[in-house]
Amino acid sequence: MKIAFIGLGNMGAPMARNLLKAGHHLHLFDLNTTILNELAALGGRISESPRHAAQGAELIITMLPAAAHVRSVYLGDDGVLAGIGSGVPAVDCSTIDPQTIRDVAAVAAKQGVSLGDAPVSGGTGGAQAGTLTFMVGASDKHFETLKPVLAQMGKNIVHCGDIGTGQIAKICNNMLLGITMIGVAEAMALGDTLGIDTEVLAKIINTSTGRCWSSEIYNPWPGIVDTAPASRGYTGGFGAELMLKDLGLATEAARVAHQPVILGAVAQQLYQAMSLRGEGGKDFSAIVEGYRKKV
Amino acid sequence: MKIAFIGLGNMGAPMARNLLKAGHHLHLFDLNTTILNELAALGGRISESPRHAAQGAELIITMLPAAAHVRSVYLGDDGVLAGIGSGVPAVDCSTIDPQTIRDVAAVAAKQGVSLGDAPVSGGTGGAQAGTLTFMVGASDKHFETLKPVLAQMGKNIVHCGDIGTGQIAKICNNMLLGITMIGVAEAMALGDTLGIDTEVLAKIINTSTGRCWSSEIYNPWPGIVDTAPASRGYTGGFGAELMLKDLGLATEAARVAHQPVILGAVAQQLYQAMSLRGEGGKDFSAIVEGYRKKV
Amino acid sequence: MKIAFIGLGNMGAPMARNLLKAGHHLHLFDLNTTILNELAALGGRISESPRHAAQGAELIITMLPAAAHVRSVYLGDDGVLAGIGSGVPAVDCSTIDPQTIRDVAAVAAKQGVSLGDAPVSGGTGGAQAGTLTFMVGASDKHFETLKPVLAQMGKNIVHCGDIGTGQIAKICNNMLLGITMIGVAEAMALGDTLGIDTEVLAKIINTSTGRCWSSEIYNPWPGIVDTAPASRGYTGGFGAELMLKDLGLATEAARVAHQPVILGAVAQQLYQAMSLRGEGGKDFSAIVEGYRKKV
Amino acid sequence: MKIAFIGLGNMGAPMARNLLKAGHHLHLFDLNTTILNELAALGGRISESPRHAAQGAELIITMLPAAAHVRSVYLGDDGVLAGIGSGVPAVDCSTIDPQTIRDVAAVAAKQGVSLGDAPVSGGTGGAQAGTLTFMVGASDKHFETLKPVLAQMGKNIVHCGDIGTGQIAKICNNMLLGITMIGVAEAMALGDTLGIDTEVLAKIINTSTGRCWSSEIYNPWPGIVDTAPASRGYTGGFGAELMLKDLGLATEAARVAHQPVILGAVAQQLYQAMSLRGEGGKDFSAIVEGYRKKV
Repeated sequence: MKIAFIGLGNMGAPMARNLLKAGHHLHLFDLNTTILNELAALGGRISESPRHAAQGAELIITMLPAAAHVRSVYLGDDGVLAGIGSGVPAVDCSTIDPQTIRDVAAVAAKQGVSLGDAPVSGGTGGAQAGTLTFMVGASDKHFETLKPVLAQMGKNIVHCGDIGTGQIAKICNNMLLGITMIGVAEAMALGDTLGIDTEVLAKIINTSTGRCWSSEIYNPWPGIVDTAPASRGYTGGFGAELMLKDLGLATEAARVAHQPVILGAVAQQLYQAMSLRGEGGKDFSAIVEGYRKKV
Repeated sequence: MKIAFIGLGNMGAPMARNLLKAGHHLHLFDLNTTILNELAALGGRISESPRHAAQGAELIITMLPAAAHVRSVYLGDDGVLAGIGSGVPAVDCSTIDPQTIRDVAAVAAKQGVSLGDAPVSGGTGGAQAGTLTFMVGASDKHFETLKPVLAQMGKNIVHCGDIGTGQIAKICNNMLLGITMIGVAEAMALGDTLGIDTEVLAKIINTSTGRCWSSEIYNPWPGIVDTAPASRGYTGGFGAELMLKDLGLATEAARVAHQPVILGAVAQQLYQAMSLRGEGGKDFSAIVEGYRKKV
Repeated sequence: MKIAFIGLGNMGAPMARNLLKAGHHLHLFDLNTTILNELAALGGRISESPRHAAQGAELIITMLPAAAHVRSVYLGDDGVLAGIGSGVPAVDCSTIDPQTIRDVAAVAAKQGVSLGDAPVSGGTGGAQAGTLTFMVGASDKHFETLKPVLAQMGKNIVHCGDIGTGQIAKICNNMLLGITMIGVAEAMALGDTLGIDTEVLAKIINTSTGRCWSSEIYNPWPGIVDTAPASRGYTGGFGAELMLKDLGLATEAARVAHQPVILGAVAQQLYQAMSLRGEGGKDFSAIVEGYRKKV
Repeated sequence: MKIAFIGLGNMGAPMARNLLKAGHHLHLFDLNTTILNELAALGGRISESPRHAAQGAELIITMLPAAAHVRSVYLGDDGVLAGIGSGVPAVDCSTIDPQTIRDVAAVAAKQGVSLGDAPVSGGTGGAQAGTLTFMVGASDKHFETLKPVLAQMGKNIVHCGDIGTGQIAKICNNMLLGITMIGVAEAMALGDTLGIDTEVLAKIINTSTGRCWSSEIYNPWPGIVDTAPASRGYTGGFGAELMLKDLGLATEAARVAHQPVILGAVAQQLYQAMSLRGEGGKDFSAIVEGYRKKV
């Protein structure tokens, strides 16, 4: 299949690599020529613009850092929509606000182009291993078109509803994740200070009503879960800056929709304060360090 | 076994009933004569004071509303300690602050009396069915003494550590529960407002990193979990006033210990605001109603 | 002086009226033809576009609802910059984010056009009476150019620094205002519940360290300050929706700048919750109603 | 006048000194013998217990660290009430919760003793200079009795209402102070980060709707107010630990009264986090340092 793949960063590049391995022919576009050359060496074709990449492609995939890039890559003079006629399916895997992708999809629809959103979870590790989760917002028919190709880059391809719902699912889930992590951090730190063994406390929580992914799989207290970032100096997980980005999308979408999210907003500010303390490069579970005495 | 059972409220009465069924001989004390007579009809003996109940008993069990009652029942002139010599084991099943039970246990220890704390979870339903969880703070030896009797009132008898750790485990877990519930409420309400189907959203959260007991078992959005209070008008679960009590214990213990609990404190205030709106009698998951437009 | 005045809403129209009274010749533009005709009757000239309004003008004034309008009014094909050459001074009185006005001003500067920001406070009452406060972000020289004309619409013309600082001053002040108002609401409601006379409490606060504009001039408790909205059913002041807009600008600017604003974010969410309860049309001091039992 | 003065700490000692200077005869009690001897050298009489101090006194003044001390000093076997008959006026200047003083006063009343509460503001500086503010909760008649003596230790003697209202006034005012200080800290830090001169920003706030004691008199940004602790390394003002104590009293009183105080609770937690970082010994305005990048 001829696929235009636009946006070859930390996530996009390994995703494109998996598609090349699967035998697809890729039209590649990015501003980074190093990564372009690297992927061209694996068989991809370098394009001069999103429009150029789109020309002749049977499917468009984009993976971009922010809403402004999505707008310009699709709607710009040299953009995707300028390069294709009606009927070519497209999917944007960026994590952005739901409104932007709805707006861009509405423009695409006028041209007969179906655009879906499919933000991912699983990080760079999942992108390399091809085990990403895709949360897809698309019509039933468009979803069926996208699914087989997404399945070559991921393990779970979840249909969330119409365009925009992929983003919504992601930001709602991640806002909750950001909150539960702080909740676990506070509960563990309080228990420790009051004098219960933290391993015992974690065990009780995990068999009780406080249990959550953040306590069971990713406990922020060092030594509780061997495979969690807390047990390796808060490295190599989901960085606090990424959590901040997702919480920013969630609270901003809430603001536009006039929907209160009180704990969500506090969580965002607490990760922001962590970042200000110079800890933004750590895994987000390092938020617990703000609840412990420095030793 | 001769057991003094002091405190026969909504929780204590069904617990005592289970002990009577198991063949124990109970010395009963409470201020409510109706319940005393009811349990006497099942074979218990009515006592005139905690001291009187304690006299001759081989085990003391207390289940009281607040710290002040625990102090006076054990330490008062007509209290438990005035009625027993050294060597009689005791356990307090009340939910109170960890410091009070430690203080009372220290006094008891001077008299050769081992006092443990064993707050419960499982509600009145669990008390009746004998399926409570006991979180026990006691020495290893004392725990072994208490376990068989507690097992006649409950299903899970968890040893949390020394005296006070039962309370600590309970308030840490319940503080986390109070936080995750609001987190789920905000995530579901935000998703609904932004336009994703709430059933789909719940399914995604429950297979992703946001999953928690509050989303899986007790989802606050009506219709998501058939057996949850949200699907029956927020009745018959864990009342918001009880959650408020536990959050009050958690934040107060944190204050005394100089330990910050930011989301815990905000959660407490949000349930307090819910209570002020006249909704304190509902299940605590009704906190979600504050995030939805009235219809 | 020939002045292009673009944006004739609740604030812009009375401001333009004051300039007409002062003898200026106005080129008017708005999408609302009713207001255009009304002001034309007072001597203004109706223009077909921002560009048309700008042509021949000696000064450009804009007063628009949001950042997107500012961008398109200045930078659009039919925008202000398309209608003027270098050297024509311009000032935007809209309340928007600091970054947008800096971006637009940078474009204008390339064309030799000095653009300043001058958001106002004082509300529609101040706009009509010509007693607005202008917080001006502009070079010293540009400020001197703008000052005399702004003084015909306002009483206090404050120079805040370079371009963007007018917006910064406004959102920082209003974020603080939003916080102090909730603080006063909580203090008054707590005092009332605990049993102190609220008039006495207000007097003590106002001669002590808790005093602030929100307690002295605009106390949210009914009957404390006769001239405050609280004493007339929370009507006719600074609407909660406007406070929400300013808090949204503040937290969004903070997010972009990676600056935590914890109480600012909580305040935003509490006004949002007030709005969800259907109270957004009231004066923002009605936030106190969420802290009082319904009677 | 013969006055029993019980509690001679950092505040009580200089207050007693002022009464000695004014010519009163003091019966002194404290556990600290150094200070007792020091004040005895100025003419006071050392007593062996609160009861002993009270015997023969015409007025009782207490200044104690916490509620437990107030209870035992008045109600203990060797307490004040055991040493006096009916008709002797008493006043407690401690800062404690309103309920305790009401409880103690109710016991005193049964014995014909009028007890008022009169917590102070003004710090150790005010205690030494005799310029304290007393917030007095007492009947009109009792207030008139107390006023002349309090006026020998302070400048402002404010009648707040019946017993307990002095405490209420103090904790409500100080809760608001704790909130406004954080609000100012966030506004100043946000402005600085966004690029406005902080001196200009402070000036604008102080002539606008954000103005408050915390911005005008005690601005937390270094260099804005010469006489503020911020301009001398956050030393010598109102320590963060004292603010924490007052916020603890406010939120605890709110909890008991079922009154939500959302920003009050967040403020408490933020000062607690500041204390955990090891900054509790600084003036409370140093809360701003958590909003600034370390340099």
